[in-house]
Amino acid sequence: MKKAVILFSGGLDSTTTLAIAKAQGFQCHAISFRYGQRHHHEITMAREIAGQIGVKNHIILDIPLTEIGGSALTGKIAVPKNRLKQKQDQTVPVTYVPARNTIFLAYALAWAETLNAFDLFIGVNALDYSGYPDCRPEYIEAFEYMANLATKAGVEGKNFSVRTPLIHMTKAQIIQKGMTLGVDYRLTHSCYDPDERGRACGHCDSCLLRKKGFREAGVPDPTRYIEDQQAV
Amino acid sequence: MKKAVILFSGGLDSTTTLAIAKAQGFQCHAISFRYGQRHHHEITMAREIAGQIGVKNHIILDIPLTEIGGSALTGKIAVPKNRLKQKQDQTVPVTYVPARNTIFLAYALAWAETLNAFDLFIGVNALDYSGYPDCRPEYIEAFEYMANLATKAGVEGKNFSVRTPLIHMTKAQIIQKGMTLGVDYRLTHSCYDPDERGRACGHCDSCLLRKKGFREAGVPDPTRYIEDQQAV
Repeated sequence: MKKAVILFSGGLDSTTTLAIAKAQGFQCHAISFRYGQRHHHEITMAREIAGQIGVKNHIILDIPLTEIGGSALTGKIAVPKNRLKQKQDQTVPVTYVPARNTIFLAYALAWAETLNAFDLFIGVNALDYSGYPDCRPEYIEAFEYMANLATKAGVEGKNFSVRTPLIHMTKAQIIQKGMTLGVDYRLTHSCYDPDERGRACGHCDSCLLRKKGFREAGVPDPTRYIEDQQAV
Repeated sequence: MKKAVILFSGGLDSTTTLAIAKAQGFQCHAISFRYGQRHHHEITMAREIAGQIGVKNHIILDIPLTEIGGSALTGKIAVPKNRLKQKQDQTVPVTYVPARNTIFLAYALAWAETLNAFDLFIGVNALDYSGYPDCRPEYIEAFEYMANLATKAGVEGKNFSVRTPLIHMTKAQIIQKGMTLGVDYRLTHSCYDPDERGRACGHCDSCLLRKKGFREAGVPDPTRYIEDQQAV
């Protein structure tokens, strides 16, 4: 059984990616990071989802990104709300975390090498996404090329592949794919700025994209939003 | 004054690299890692050297490489001794740490982006080195290319450079260069397997390369070796 390492945050995209890797017959090794994110609730959910989908193992690493700073997700800068609604903003938002996917993929690569796994899965998406540079296909290709020069296994002729099954899908298509694989989206967490009980704000980029995805997929949105529950 | 981020372990190579960056007029931001290395003594020395050479700031990050394993430097595998003496061994040794420079450079890149620094210095060397794949020029070039696709700054047209002033130098040339810049090599630590007082084993790859370097440079070796001090 071929092994794969899956970057797995407990969000909608990475959960669907994990389900796809599993459906493709890989033995799945999931890796998550506590990096000082406001939405560390996602890690609590990640543990539960990993158990439900069934992974060989799941490591959660504590990494010191708050000491580096530079992002609304790890610092004191406010998370922007209702931003995608206002205009088609093409700039990189303040929720961008400098070099985050490079750091995540670097750890995934290290772990993969020790496991003799040569497939790394990452749920990046270049359509319904927040505009982060490290989600684009050209970045992923450059990382993959570098990875094969960086490692003992690469030099010895093994070939690391960075697999991005969601990269050309809309959020609606991702949800539809996940539904066919039995993903329980109630467990997944996307919001950048949840309350202390893990309920979604409903207005950050990530919430807006998620809402739009469920709407366009014609699937009832199972997310627990703060405002819905206040209304109840 | 242009800023630079310097990967700085407190070893001979990275200390010389720091001195070179300083001599080139950069405002120096040094970054070190505690990653569970046997030779964490290097970090104690790094702090002292950074103060002596004069850096703008110095961060020391704790990163979870022992949870990944796969190396004699972070695990229970023994560090090989007198290996370079025995033969011209072309294989990657067990002291290789999977994806280490990729992880280190990824953090350096993240920090550089938050600092508006576009020069990253790393003291890799492709001549008198242990045979690690992530010390070779082709790896460095691939990382640099990837870094400019990975980041907001890169996308906005800033250009990150990964500078490797030592890459084509012998260990002797590195030492001679450092001497002209006033580096105090007594403070630098290279040994992979020191005793609890930080004294060098004298027989690991790193000690052998260092000894050879001082001998060929015609410079007295200031290293505190375990065996010398036992003889006294």
